[in-house]
Order: sequence, then C-alpha cells, then structure tokens
Amino acid sequence: MSKLFVMGMGPGDLGLVAPNATKALNACSDWVAYGYYLELLGELSQGKTFHDLPLGEEIGRARLALDLAAQGKTTALISSGDIGIYAMATLVFELLDQQLQGKENHPEWLDVEIEVIPGISAMQAGASRVGAMLGHDFCTVSLSDLLTPWETIDKRIHAAGAGDFVISFYNPVSRKRDWQLNHARDVLLQYRPATTPVMIGRQLTRPEENITFTTLGELDAKDVDMFTMVSVGNSESRHIQNGDKHWIYTPRGYSKKL
Amino acid sequence: MSKLFVMGMGPGDLGLVAPNATKALNACSDWVAYGYYLELLGELSQGKTFHDLPLGEEIGRARLALDLAAQGKTTALISSGDIGIYAMATLVFELLDQQLQGKENHPEWLDVEIEVIPGISAMQAGASRVGAMLGHDFCTVSLSDLLTPWETIDKRIHAAGAGDFVISFYNPVSRKRDWQLNHARDVLLQYRPATTPVMIGRQLTRPEENITFTTLGELDAKDVDMFTMVSVGNSESRHIQNGDKHWIYTPRGYSKKL
Repeated sequence: MSKLFVMGMGPGDLGLVAPNATKALNACSDWVAYGYYLELLGELSQGKTFHDLPLGEEIGRARLALDLAAQGKTTALISSGDIGIYAMATLVFELLDQQLQGKENHPEWLDVEIEVIPGISAMQAGASRVGAMLGHDFCTVSLSDLLTPWETIDKRIHAAGAGDFVISFYNPVSRKRDWQLNHARDVLLQYRPATTPVMIGRQLTRPEENITFTTLGELDAKDVDMFTMVSVGNSESRHIQNGDKHWIYTPRGYSKKL
Repeated sequence: MSKLFVMGMGPGDLGLVAPNATKALNACSDWVAYGYYLELLGELSQGKTFHDLPLGEEIGRARLALDLAAQGKTTALISSGDIGIYAMATLVFELLDQQLQGKENHPEWLDVEIEVIPGISAMQAGASRVGAMLGHDFCTVSLSDLLTPWETIDKRIHAAGAGDFVISFYNPVSRKRDWQLNHARDVLLQYRPATTPVMIGRQLTRPEENITFTTLGELDAKDVDMFTMVSVGNSESRHIQNGDKHWIYTPRGYSKKL
C-alpha cells in the first residue's frame, strides 16, 4: 500500500511539531513542500529527497505528492502551521474528488492511503504568546482574494463583526495586496470599539519573532507583512499590563463567579 | 523566579503532544488538572505531585496553579486540547487582571512567570481525521450557556450561518443540556442546505474513537455526548467516498484552476 502523509509542522519552533509528524517524516523517502518550510525543518531532513516547488505552485505540489505516493514512495506533503487550515490538505482531497468524478486521469491516486496530521496554527501560536486571546468563540478569515471572491470575504468580515467573534486574519496582506486589511478594520469598527485589543504577530515562535500590541482603531496594513498573523479581540477582550509584560485575553465569563 | 506553564495536551493521542509541552511537564514538580486528563498522560506522570480538582472547579484550579507557582514550585496547569481555546488559560489571566485591579489579595501572583504552550484542538483532530474540513474560513461556537447568555450564543450561530463559515461546536451537549444543538441545526438550515456534510467525532484520536459522517438535516443531539466534537461544513464542503473510505473537505477554490 502506498502512503501519503499530509502534515503541518506548526508555526516554526520545532518544539511545537507533533511527534506523530516527526515520526512520519522519518518514515518518508520523499518530501514535498515550499522550500522555506524545508529550511525550517533543517536538522530533520538528512537523507531525504526534496521536491521544492515555489509558492503559487500549490496544485503542482499536491499532484506531485499523490504521484510519488502512487509510485510506491512513502511521501510527506508538508506545510507550516496546520496543513488542514488554509493549506494543502484540502487540495489533495479536491484532486481525489476530481478523479472520483472522472475529471482527472489518475486512477492510481485512489489506491494511495492518506493520513493527515494536524499542527499548531498561527492563530494558536499568536494567542498563546500573548496570553489567551482565543478564550471564547472565534473565527478565521483569509483576506486573500486570489481564490475567493472579495464579496464572500467582505460578507464574512461583516458576519464576524455581527457575531462578535475574535477574528484571526490569515494572509492579511501580500506584496500586491494591502487595502483589504484596512477595509476589514473599518468594517469591524462598525461593530466593536476602537479600543479593542489587536495582536500583530510576526514570525511567531521563530528566532526573529516580533509581537506588537495595538488596538483596532490603530491597526494599519503598513505594519503588517506576509509573515504576520493579525488577531482582533472581541468586544470583551482585554489588554492588561503587569510591569513590562503585556497580555491579551478574551474572558469566558468566569468573572461573574470570581 | 517562580514559573507556571499553562499547557494543552492535545486531543488524547500522546503522539500529538508538542515536545515543548512534554519538556515543560518534566520540568514541573506539580501538575494541576482535571483527573481525566491526568489519566491520559499516564506514562509521563511518574514522580509528580497531582492536584486533581473535578470538573466545575475551574476557578479553583487556576487559583491553585497560581498559588503553587507563587510558592516557588514549578507548576503545570494542564488541559486537553489547546488550553487557550475554551479552556483554563483565559481564567489565569482573568485572575491576574482582578489582582491588577485590586480585586484580589494575591500580589504574589504578579511575580509568577507565565508561559502558555498551545496544543492541537478537537476541531483540528476532527478535521484531520475526516480529511480537510477546515480548508476555508471557519469559526467555533461553544453551546454551553453556563457562562455565556444564550442570546449571545444564538446571535453567533446566526452570524456563523450568515457568513457561511465552517462551524465547530464545542460543548455541544451535556448531561443536563441537549436542546441547544438541535436549535443550532435549525438555525443553520436557514442558511445552508440540509445536505451539508457534518462530522460527529467522539473521543477523537483515542483508542475508543468513533467518527460518524452525517448531514446537517440528519444531525440530532441524541447521537452526541460530552466527548464529542461536531463540525458542520460550509455550503461548499463535500463528502466524498473512495471505496469504503469517507472524507469531508472544504474547498479553497482551486478547482477553478484545476
């Protein structure tokens, strides 16, 4: 039986990679990933065959991973974070679905055993670094309109505002795209105070990590890049300071009982 | 410096516990948790002092963890899943906040160094076991009205429906509470088709794991208990079958490019 592991390697710190993922990586002969992620895995990667396809070649990466596994090579398709969250896992199943519908000509893909291994996503890394930002109901919204119509994204920002969810923005900006985050801020300001705490987490859990505490009113896309996670609190989230240490937490409502 | 680690141990499979969490557990003399979680950690727990407070004593657990750490004992406050997601982390910071406001009389808490270590949450365990259910924008809603007014929960279910988010329900039922999940289903049926795929994941990643694939129209609280995660797809999520293997994935929109 040929096998494909589809796995997320967490935000960057190897100490957050699940042992199941490390074990599977060791069992694989072939690794398929965007090169930057392979670099993060440095010490684990000796003796493996790399298939390093650039950003933007997501479909090619998913096809290649299925092809390699179908050829009998135990293969790892790797992303950072959780590969099930805005990442490659869904594309593997979308390709399988196409094959099941007869729209692809790769019946050998259907014989591949697939195992998905989750990882720590950026929203969790950020929330933990600043305290407990995801302590109550939350949502995620990707601001990339490469694959999703902007109307859908805009609808979701409004819904997130109306529901008073803590919101984590994935793909908040890109080199060619910077107005969406400020638009999202302006939408959310219709629903929650300008003082709402915001975390801007860059390169979370990596040596170059940099975390900024700001507010919804002060949030500006110019302070954000592609390596950044932006999380906006709900209307009850609090930014507190103990000496020089800052925290953001979103209460669950225990204070009524304290 | 006294230190408190606030850590999530993932859904149950020890192979999903972050090495940083395991390392911190080993460094601690005192573990504070609900007993069931301590059982899951079995082999790791030799030589530790347990502080096993029952379900419902969340505030007591957070206080005890801060107290022990303030006494100089390196302490772990432990939950399953991600302790930052509907779990104990937020309560630690809520207590700190109370102290900072002078509403508690524990200035020693302010000297405790706190490190939060995230874990794999049940929604991620479930999504990975069935494929890629969280492949696009998603939200979480806790159906427990112990601490949150039902009006707030109801508003969030409507917002999740209006935004067409994939939805993971935490605390979907309890011994005394079973109507909320069916109500949530009825609300979501106003926004998405009865054929929308639903995962019912019981005891995810544990030896007794049991996963049921159903639809929004067929979802019924009688099939759900306290050890269960319920995730509802968005209007584009697909349930596919390859031989006897079932998957659910939520497409990101690559099909336009396939």
